[in-house]
Amino acid sequence: MPSVDLNSDLGEGFGTYRCGDDDAMLAIVTSANVACGLHAGDPEVMARTFAIARQRGVAVGAHPGFPDLWGFGRRRLPFTNGEIERLVAYQVGAAMALAAYAGHRITYVKTHGALGNIACEERDVADAVARAVRAVDRDLSVLAIAVTEMAAAGEAAGLEIHQEIYADRGYTETGQLIPRGQPGAMIEGAEEAAARVLAMVQAGAVITASGKHLPTPIRSICVHGDSEHAVATASLVRKRLEQAGVTLKPFKPIAA
Amino acid sequence: MPSVDLNSDLGEGFGTYRCGDDDAMLAIVTSANVACGLHAGDPEVMARTFAIARQRGVAVGAHPGFPDLWGFGRRRLPFTNGEIERLVAYQVGAAMALAAYAGHRITYVKTHGALGNIACEERDVADAVARAVRAVDRDLSVLAIAVTEMAAAGEAAGLEIHQEIYADRGYTETGQLIPRGQPGAMIEGAEEAAARVLAMVQAGAVITASGKHLPTPIRSICVHGDSEHAVATASLVRKRLEQAGVTLKPFKPIAA
Amino acid sequence: MPSVDLNSDLGEGFGTYRCGDDDAMLAIVTSANVACGLHAGDPEVMARTFAIARQRGVAVGAHPGFPDLWGFGRRRLPFTNGEIERLVAYQVGAAMALAAYAGHRITYVKTHGALGNIACEERDVADAVARAVRAVDRDLSVLAIAVTEMAAAGEAAGLEIHQEIYADRGYTETGQLIPRGQPGAMIEGAEEAAARVLAMVQAGAVITASGKHLPTPIRSICVHGDSEHAVATASLVRKRLEQAGVTLKPFKPIAA
Amino acid sequence: MPSVDLNSDLGEGFGTYRCGDDDAMLAIVTSANVACGLHAGDPEVMARTFAIARQRGVAVGAHPGFPDLWGFGRRRLPFTNGEIERLVAYQVGAAMALAAYAGHRITYVKTHGALGNIACEERDVADAVARAVRAVDRDLSVLAIAVTEMAAAGEAAGLEIHQEIYADRGYTETGQLIPRGQPGAMIEGAEEAAARVLAMVQAGAVITASGKHLPTPIRSICVHGDSEHAVATASLVRKRLEQAGVTLKPFKPIAA
Repeated sequence: MPSVDLNSDLGEGFGTYRCGDDDAMLAIVTSANVACGLHAGDPEVMARTFAIARQRGVAVGAHPGFPDLWGFGRRRLPFTNGEIERLVAYQVGAAMALAAYAGHRITYVKTHGALGNIACEERDVADAVARAVRAVDRDLSVLAIAVTEMAAAGEAAGLEIHQEIYADRGYTETGQLIPRGQPGAMIEGAEEAAARVLAMVQAGAVITASGKHLPTPIRSICVHGDSEHAVATASLVRKRLEQAGVTLKPFKPIAA
Repeated sequence: MPSVDLNSDLGEGFGTYRCGDDDAMLAIVTSANVACGLHAGDPEVMARTFAIARQRGVAVGAHPGFPDLWGFGRRRLPFTNGEIERLVAYQVGAAMALAAYAGHRITYVKTHGALGNIACEERDVADAVARAVRAVDRDLSVLAIAVTEMAAAGEAAGLEIHQEIYADRGYTETGQLIPRGQPGAMIEGAEEAAARVLAMVQAGAVITASGKHLPTPIRSICVHGDSEHAVATASLVRKRLEQAGVTLKPFKPIAA
Repeated sequence: MPSVDLNSDLGEGFGTYRCGDDDAMLAIVTSANVACGLHAGDPEVMARTFAIARQRGVAVGAHPGFPDLWGFGRRRLPFTNGEIERLVAYQVGAAMALAAYAGHRITYVKTHGALGNIACEERDVADAVARAVRAVDRDLSVLAIAVTEMAAAGEAAGLEIHQEIYADRGYTETGQLIPRGQPGAMIEGAEEAAARVLAMVQAGAVITASGKHLPTPIRSICVHGDSEHAVATASLVRKRLEQAGVTLKPFKPIAA
Repeated sequence: MPSVDLNSDLGEGFGTYRCGDDDAMLAIVTSANVACGLHAGDPEVMARTFAIARQRGVAVGAHPGFPDLWGFGRRRLPFTNGEIERLVAYQVGAAMALAAYAGHRITYVKTHGALGNIACEERDVADAVARAVRAVDRDLSVLAIAVTEMAAAGEAAGLEIHQEIYADRGYTETGQLIPRGQPGAMIEGAEEAAARVLAMVQAGAVITASGKHLPTPIRSICVHGDSEHAVATASLVRKRLEQAGVTLKPFKPIAA
């Protein structure tokens, strides 16, 4: 009986600003990628998100991004690899401490937004992220988009890597996400997203736009938390997987 | 043969802004209280400070403050005790991670500026700080001004407390720092500061403005790093202590 | 035939964060108080808000607050009166320039959140705000809550003052807003809010909780833009006023 | 008798952080380019700088940069031209208001750091800056490095342009600054800097590394305020110019 994890970027509010319906999403997902205060999130949001996740048995990961609250971490900022290492270490440490404060534990790291995109594309940036994670705590896993430089760099650094697919994105013939704005980039409709996810999990492969299978160990499915239909889509993805006999659970057990 | 620690607030630059001569101070002190990025410091400054400290055998502590870069953490901001807990945890975690990244280890926490002042005066705020430290890592010590609520709260929380005196400040009859702006608040002159420090260390007591002795275990001496004569004063304090046979070493051993 | 202005705090988003339905509100109000980037808002949000307001004939005012994005300007920060002057001048200038950039013109200033509350209560702070406004441009008006120190200070400074009432708040016997959390502080229900507003406008008086009339020239009505029923309430307030023959128009004409 | 202006980037501190010796520089220069709070400066520093400049008859300009305090505006951030327009307008407006508050008046705009570099190189960015300046106040001048896209764009926009040379930088054969790090980029030594400046002012031309003259109306000389020998160099440049009979005065008269 296969099992898979369902993850989402949560804790992305800031002060009085809200972003998505975290409470609803934390009742659906099995892992929460929590923003660390530099592109979104703040100590209050972080602690609250960790506390709810702990109550519900949801695993938590640090979700570091560029220091760019104004741009929500989506601008590609010109930091050096060394600066990226320190930025990642800083944020992972802050998240670890606040998780401990909330009685929970960070078990993995996933990069956010522009930092995540660059780490998927450029091996030296991916290596910098991996070095930072390993330096902070070599027991941390890395949650990485399947078939990317980030996944490769994490493995090379001796870190435990878990690969994820995106529920609402199409894939190129080499297994990359079709860039936003191009035809087939976005999967519209919750049913279609759920069906694709189920097919990929059952196949143990990324399925490209043309239907080609790229065998990959799929450990997690990323669902978005901040779009209009986020909760409905995430909920349906979970339902269809469960109906097909797939167990939903964190890709990495929550520590005692 | 008595021994004592010499600590200073370092790593207080930000980006291109410099604050004091950290490099010179790290050759004098035995413990460095390192700003954590919210009132001063940034990941670059933190990592650099931890790396130099490690090379020189200087112990490092997290030095959390209010999130107020503009005010350098000196404004008394109206945060709740709960918010203070989360702010302290966030900063301590970030410092722990960057210290690990630099091959060093945070062994203690000392509060900065307005947060430090309030934690010395108000027991509930001191309790909040102690709760945060304990929640993040109960092996962390607290470096606290002698005879303050912070020292009492740390002890009550079961944390290891190390008490410090200030080289350049006068003391009231109850052992509090004479508030800045009042007569006797500041000790002018490096020789006088050094002589007073030596007298207090030898007496094992805070010596008040009138000369009264308040017996207290003095584990550390705080010297400022950012005033005009900071390096000269710190250097002389160290010299006079060593000449009197006092060993200078971190109040808490640097971990292997 | 009486006329009155309908104002709301708008442009309170930041980056990708949204706050209320500005687009809907700008179709209802006659004046928009626009955040200036320190407690909310950013140059993009400001320019967009000014541009839409211009298209719709909505007057625009600068809405300066404390530099506290995390707290949305609701924390009472310990700034000196001098610092408040500079903070207000900075924000008013930024808003004037972006309004000009968008082809519009700032005609008034209204203080936000904690800064607004303090300026209503403390004459010296209100004087500081008035000095800043006058120094930047003495043709700017001040929009102030009726019967407050801010209204008095603006008048004493020789500025044109326009007094406003709140649609959703109850009033004490001396004309102050009943503090939130106390009975009668909030007017629940759009119909009741609309009826009260109409009564006060027709009476030319603030009506207290006990029904007492405090005659005051009411130039504007403030409706909130960010609560759940904001748009519905604002819309009903406008409708009931118009049905009663009250003309809705900016308290200060939009300049050519 | 020729006259020329001496300008420097000032008001670049932030909170307790200092940057250069503004007080000394304001006794030497005739125009001060004042940071506007996004890459350096804050309302306190701005108002203080404007007030001292007014007392000493020093002209003041707004010196907008990227919103990047951490990077001091030196990182090339990926903003769109539209975003740059709004960022420039915001900062120029804030500076105008605080100058008015201090009894002074902004007469020109000069872009800072990475924004300045890009505006020198890329015409569309230079056009965006010029559009923003003109939209805020078409009576503002632009101070631009001689022979750059910024100078050309300002002129095309119908703004008054004043061209400047750098006292401490070498020039390529086409009149561009030799990039830092390349041989001849920096002019070492105050005497050599002063001599070169005098030669260029007397020749009415930029003099390249090979000695070629590129005739250009030189209205101002930029001296740096934050390097180690800044004050000494600026002072000597002024002295040598005055000894040669060149009058030092603002390129644009200070308004009444």
